[in-house]
Amino acid sequence: MPLTVDDARMLAAAVPSGVTPSEWNDLNLRFAEVHHAVARDRAAGRYGFLELEAQAAEVARIHEYVAGCVGRFDDVVVLGIGGSALGAIALRTALAPANPAPRLHVLDNVDPLPMSRLLASLDPARTLWCVVSKSGGTVETLAQYAIARRWVEQAGLPVKWHFAIVTDPKSGPLRELTARDALAAFDVPPNVGGRFSVLTPVGLLPAALAGYDVDALLAGAKAMRERCNAVALADNPAGLIASLLWRAHQRAGQGTHVLMPYSNALQAIALWFVQLWGESLGKRDADGIPTGPTPVGARGATDQHSLLQLLMDGPTDKVVAFVRVASHGADLTVPADGDVPSAAGFMKGRSLGELLGAEADATARALVSAGRPSMTITVDRADARAVGELMMCLMLATVYAGALYRVNPLDQPGVELGKRLAKEALTDTR
Amino acid sequence: MPLTVDDARMLAAAVPSGVTPSEWNDLNLRFAEVHHAVARDRAAGRYGFLELEAQAAEVARIHEYVAGCVGRFDDVVVLGIGGSALGAIALRTALAPANPAPRLHVLDNVDPLPMSRLLASLDPARTLWCVVSKSGGTVETLAQYAIARRWVEQAGLPVKWHFAIVTDPKSGPLRELTARDALAAFDVPPNVGGRFSVLTPVGLLPAALAGYDVDALLAGAKAMRERCNAVALADNPAGLIASLLWRAHQRAGQGTHVLMPYSNALQAIALWFVQLWGESLGKRDADGIPTGPTPVGARGATDQHSLLQLLMDGPTDKVVAFVRVASHGADLTVPADGDVPSAAGFMKGRSLGELLGAEADATARALVSAGRPSMTITVDRADARAVGELMMCLMLATVYAGALYRVNPLDQPGVELGKRLAKEALTDTR
Repeated sequence: MPLTVDDARMLAAAVPSGVTPSEWNDLNLRFAEVHHAVARDRAAGRYGFLELEAQAAEVARIHEYVAGCVGRFDDVVVLGIGGSALGAIALRTALAPANPAPRLHVLDNVDPLPMSRLLASLDPARTLWCVVSKSGGTVETLAQYAIARRWVEQAGLPVKWHFAIVTDPKSGPLRELTARDALAAFDVPPNVGGRFSVLTPVGLLPAALAGYDVDALLAGAKAMRERCNAVALADNPAGLIASLLWRAHQRAGQGTHVLMPYSNALQAIALWFVQLWGESLGKRDADGIPTGPTPVGARGATDQHSLLQLLMDGPTDKVVAFVRVASHGADLTVPADGDVPSAAGFMKGRSLGELLGAEADATARALVSAGRPSMTITVDRADARAVGELMMCLMLATVYAGALYRVNPLDQPGVELGKRLAKEALTDTR
Repeated sequence: MPLTVDDARMLAAAVPSGVTPSEWNDLNLRFAEVHHAVARDRAAGRYGFLELEAQAAEVARIHEYVAGCVGRFDDVVVLGIGGSALGAIALRTALAPANPAPRLHVLDNVDPLPMSRLLASLDPARTLWCVVSKSGGTVETLAQYAIARRWVEQAGLPVKWHFAIVTDPKSGPLRELTARDALAAFDVPPNVGGRFSVLTPVGLLPAALAGYDVDALLAGAKAMRERCNAVALADNPAGLIASLLWRAHQRAGQGTHVLMPYSNALQAIALWFVQLWGESLGKRDADGIPTGPTPVGARGATDQHSLLQLLMDGPTDKVVAFVRVASHGADLTVPADGDVPSAAGFMKGRSLGELLGAEADATARALVSAGRPSMTITVDRADARAVGELMMCLMLATVYAGALYRVNPLDQPGVELGKRLAKEALTDTR
């Protein structure tokens, strides 16, 4: 079953701030313009993340490289931060098997403790390091690389066999290094930014090394991309999500957008979405006004016991996008004759998956009764194909939302000053 | 070094929306009233989480129980959700040693996959289950308990030796069960709600079983509680945090409060804080108006590559509270003669801890240059005493903020409807 978006609880028939029929027509007209503009920019090569076919050669190289790694490594460590890490973390959380071989680690911070602990637990001879930075100049990643490299050298191992680099195809410090030392290297297309890069070697190399089904992931993404050729909102899931969230912000002041998967496997996709939605849209618009929604990641049913109170009774500035999984693989059933106190007696013979589904449904209904809007994205199951669909859907929604918010979804001008100040501080005080 | 709060970047001298000297006087006067009201309610027994001395007998029982468990278990599994899980997760993330024995697991969702995987990996004879629910009637937890109990019984093991219960001292389904089956049981004081319960057996039993320093945790909490006897904001860290965040919301529309530890160890305290701040304050105020701040958890330096763009250039509705760790235990240094590309050449001979600190400082300075307020909470190191200080500080800040927002910080009326609807759905369709 392909991904669906249920928008019934975003409509005026359900909640006071919802979309009226005439607004629905306006939204469709506006989205048709957005769709046209995005199609034009896509044809001009602006959205490299949509050019999945252009990845075919790199994907073939990844498969070949991974085939050569089989049996050689117990641990694969990704060094990367932000968009160079969140995709791999999201894929690992969704797709890692019960007993992964090799294990996939992501060191996405310069906190010394997790890195020193990981180093202490690894066998250098059985460890592969994936160094990921599009520009090749990310300070955090280069610092980690220098430490990891020394660790490999001190074990007397050939650097060449223990490092794989993912970076710009032509330029940058990491690219120079791969040339100098003949390291395995994979390309991040120049027209794909970090937070849109999960379906390039940034996400695909770690995924393939860890044994996830990269081809199914790409097939799901392609299927979603094709569906989003539709101009009508009702047929374009990404367009629908973007239009409804943007409109809720503009018309009803609902600028806090909560993505809440009812699934532990999909929870890290919410973290990945927080970067995608926040960094793409949180900026000055065409008039120089600070704008953009605030994304929040959550997880059901757990966060019913954390965030739900705020969602129900707090400020009316939020929309919840639930993500549900239609079928859970290995479900667990409460024994029909088990020791279930009467407070939960109705759970006898019921499965945890049923409880999770009933809670998701009940929470959406409770929100409606409080006049709070929500939508529900449903995927068939938490597998590679569905993850590909979902991630492509959210990336396309982000590009559509950029046009609606009148911002450039591909840049991040606000993060440069902090980088410069940190560098100055470390340089000055030497 | 005790915990400090640096408020310089919350003041009008630093940012346009900051506190002016006359506002500072007003805030002090208002806080004096709040402090008085909280002291009065504390004397009336309203804030059980402050009555750490009353925990002494239960702490002694925990130490005794844990002594009897030494060597018997390889794995301890907490079954709990929301406030019954977040404290244990925060403590584990902060305090777990590199090679924990026993390992501490927390199943805080009814997602079947993580539970079935964990069951498959455990040895029933070497596993202890901690079932945590203050009311004893939490459906999710009771369902997990029934499944775990059957799993223990099917292994032919005595239930009595493999379950420990944390619940209300007198009533509720779990309390009845402990009486019936003579299970080990520990009390959640009736005047301590889930999200304030980390320093009761809810957090302390798992922490002690996992070998963390429970006494240092409590000592840190007590020290902070004593400091907060001060009425002057400058001397009361919790009062200062609450007053500044509340005032930013009321006067400057800054109602999104980002807690951003620059430490992987402290990152789960941000998740715990999200529940504490959101569920305590997100509700209708004394006039029935929906109110409350929206808490967001983040982690530095990683989220400079995710949220910072939004914080710098997005809507001016946010305050960032950084949490910094003054000294990192096992730091890692970039080799002075290592392979560091020139883009990161200034890192030669520098440690990751230095980089983390420089980035925290640079980010705060960058925010100020964009006119965005922040404060910095600094703890000496990420150890049990500092965690006790920090958690007590944030719990007290929450109670103070409840008085400022004019809400009851101890209830959660908005979460009941969803529970009822879920139960009805599972009952009706049988």
